[in-house]
Amino acid sequence: MSNCNKLGIGLAGFGTVGSGVWNTIEKNGELISDRTANGVSLRITKILVRDPAKTRATTSAVPTEILTTDWRELVNDPSVDIVVELIGGTTDAFEIIAAALLAKKPVVTGNKALLAERGIELFAISRKMETPIFFEAAIAGGIPIVKIVQDSFVGNRIHSFTGIINGTSNYILEQMTLRGIDYTTALGEAQALGYAEADPALDVNGWDAAHKAILLATLAYGFPIDPKNIHVSGIEQVRPTDIKFAKSLGYVIKLLAIVREHESGSVELRIQPSFISQKHILASVHGVFNAVSVNADAAGESLFYGRGAGQGPTASSVVADLVEAARDLAHATRHRGFLPYRETGNLVPIAETTTAYYVRFDVTDRPGTIAEIATVLAKHAIGISGTHSPVNPDNPDAEFLDMVFLLHSCPFGKLTAALTEIESLNCVNSTPVVFRIENLG
Amino acid sequence: MSNCNKLGIGLAGFGTVGSGVWNTIEKNGELISDRTANGVSLRITKILVRDPAKTRATTSAVPTEILTTDWRELVNDPSVDIVVELIGGTTDAFEIIAAALLAKKPVVTGNKALLAERGIELFAISRKMETPIFFEAAIAGGIPIVKIVQDSFVGNRIHSFTGIINGTSNYILEQMTLRGIDYTTALGEAQALGYAEADPALDVNGWDAAHKAILLATLAYGFPIDPKNIHVSGIEQVRPTDIKFAKSLGYVIKLLAIVREHESGSVELRIQPSFISQKHILASVHGVFNAVSVNADAAGESLFYGRGAGQGPTASSVVADLVEAARDLAHATRHRGFLPYRETGNLVPIAETTTAYYVRFDVTDRPGTIAEIATVLAKHAIGISGTHSPVNPDNPDAEFLDMVFLLHSCPFGKLTAALTEIESLNCVNSTPVVFRIENLG
Repeated sequence: MSNCNKLGIGLAGFGTVGSGVWNTIEKNGELISDRTANGVSLRITKILVRDPAKTRATTSAVPTEILTTDWRELVNDPSVDIVVELIGGTTDAFEIIAAALLAKKPVVTGNKALLAERGIELFAISRKMETPIFFEAAIAGGIPIVKIVQDSFVGNRIHSFTGIINGTSNYILEQMTLRGIDYTTALGEAQALGYAEADPALDVNGWDAAHKAILLATLAYGFPIDPKNIHVSGIEQVRPTDIKFAKSLGYVIKLLAIVREHESGSVELRIQPSFISQKHILASVHGVFNAVSVNADAAGESLFYGRGAGQGPTASSVVADLVEAARDLAHATRHRGFLPYRETGNLVPIAETTTAYYVRFDVTDRPGTIAEIATVLAKHAIGISGTHSPVNPDNPDAEFLDMVFLLHSCPFGKLTAALTEIESLNCVNSTPVVFRIENLG
Repeated sequence: MSNCNKLGIGLAGFGTVGSGVWNTIEKNGELISDRTANGVSLRITKILVRDPAKTRATTSAVPTEILTTDWRELVNDPSVDIVVELIGGTTDAFEIIAAALLAKKPVVTGNKALLAERGIELFAISRKMETPIFFEAAIAGGIPIVKIVQDSFVGNRIHSFTGIINGTSNYILEQMTLRGIDYTTALGEAQALGYAEADPALDVNGWDAAHKAILLATLAYGFPIDPKNIHVSGIEQVRPTDIKFAKSLGYVIKLLAIVREHESGSVELRIQPSFISQKHILASVHGVFNAVSVNADAAGESLFYGRGAGQGPTASSVVADLVEAARDLAHATRHRGFLPYRETGNLVPIAETTTAYYVRFDVTDRPGTIAEIATVLAKHAIGISGTHSPVNPDNPDAEFLDMVFLLHSCPFGKLTAALTEIESLNCVNSTPVVFRIENLG
């Protein structure tokens, strides 16, 4: 370490977020120093880039001599005390973080996919080397949920998280709700506005939210979670008809990440489009904003809301982590324990998770269709709270149509068994689409 | 300090919150140890009480030998590493905190009135003794806004806070809104439910919120603020007629704390009942909940919502501070800088603060009343966006009535000059009531 309070930072990656970190330190460095004991001073001393010749949109000039294209040079540079990984992906990023930890250089990263997929390996190196990984930017961008769970709620048993933690999905669902447009149109607009990537798969299929939810669960419950064991469904199947129907019943459709500890100690973790009451505060999470609602035994109900992505918010979280890393380095201390702090834990099998449901069937309409479906549901002892099929006034006798069933609470496994049977009925033309109806209290 | 990781705590005060701290440590002590580096272990070793014989509603028995009625004994007890002040008030509490700091024992307190009124003295002792005061519980109960501002947003310049930070007022206003009841009835119910004190003055007159807002401003802008220099008005003058009128225009009335840095660097700080859009997320803050919306240069817009008072939430914040204090003690470090970190700063004079307004006049109605009032407003170049007076269908020709004016944005000083003149009109029977109309974007 170059000095107790002057910390050298190596930035691996210098895209939007990297430039944001540069600008924030440039603009608010003095303020940071004022606010911290002994005046922490952050200085970026090395930057890993793909193309050193590229023009950078930073608020002050970046000296070319601190640029490098070789990550080993960055990690090993003696001026670098802390490594910030911002290149994304799960291969090179893994190598960089592992090498930094092995060199006892604390790591700051926003790479949720890497930590969710290969966190177990990296956390093990971190613990062995007694060198922390900070990842505030990995969950919900500028919302400081990691620090809230680890520090502010350290005295709380967390009962549950309910999160809207993918801004792209939230934006798309909201546009569909406000304007009645379909999924493809809304996605195209989100891409045009830069809210969705050219390849939006991870955002819309629920896996970006799932990565974040896995990290939340590990923070709260302390055990590693294999992404293979959780249930994830995205928003690709949401249609205007679903949205309209939800609205008519006083609901709004949101992509929710649910993380919940059962009394048994097992943890329920699932990502699904869900009906929630229009009156619930999560229904007021608009556009690309994120929110995480936390239910904890001492603090009760809380909600943390903010920008889940973007240059400034992500940089805000990276800089907070840098200041924490700097403090730890300056005093050779460590505040938070290492993750995971329990070796194993149990997930609630998805088949056992229980909510009410909205199910849309693509049916060939004829007398008896409802009866056939209802009979199978009855056989499985699943209660129906309502059925509906939108009648087209121009074609009231349409042969193919959407038929919607609202079902009382039952375990998901029971529902899927019934739906498998229903799918094989002649009158049903494709796999039924299921959304959860969440009672958020 | 008895041991690096085992920390002895002296609780000054053992009412609701003190018992909550006892219970939380009892229930979640192991969890705290799991989550913190080197396993922080908190133990309450001394408790200041008024009456040692009183029965305590704690989840485990409190040994009578750790009770004392002498605060000096508590502060000086060698088993006490950290002092938690929970007795409230600004006299004995001051003595206890000052003595603890002078003994180099970190202090945790939730005493907003003390810190807002006499913080300058205590912070000076804290700095001189290099011993911190933690006060997460002093602002918005279980919402970790202190840590968010000091740590998570350390890299941000804070543009503004907009807070609903008095649960009692929020509860009363909401009941008035939902049920059309008047202020006195709603206050009585709040008292019966334990949401308002027998003496509710500080809650309803805005000063409890003001104390918290002063602390928020000092956290964000670093300079001490004299309570005498800020503008505070409470909810006592809100009538059903105001609520109904707000509703009809798409607004809801909330007691808002506004803290905002102007471009000049001066800080606007005021507490007032305000009209806000029903669509704004702050309008969804129900019951006794609190919320603080933060606008920061990097993180953008955020909102932090939760329980602003009560046993569990307050204990949650006290315990988080204890863990932070324990970490600092264990390593003889300090993370946050001392407050205030600037010697002085400027407040924006209330006369220069600018919003739109809702003004209710108690008038003697006769032809010319509106003209007289409007003429004075015109003279002061204050634009009127609407006037209204609720007609009583049973008595359409009532002589005395409420007349409401909605006014375009202007500096508050200009408004008060006009209102002074209007108050002297014959047709106006009492001091006009003014609420702000906030454009929260």
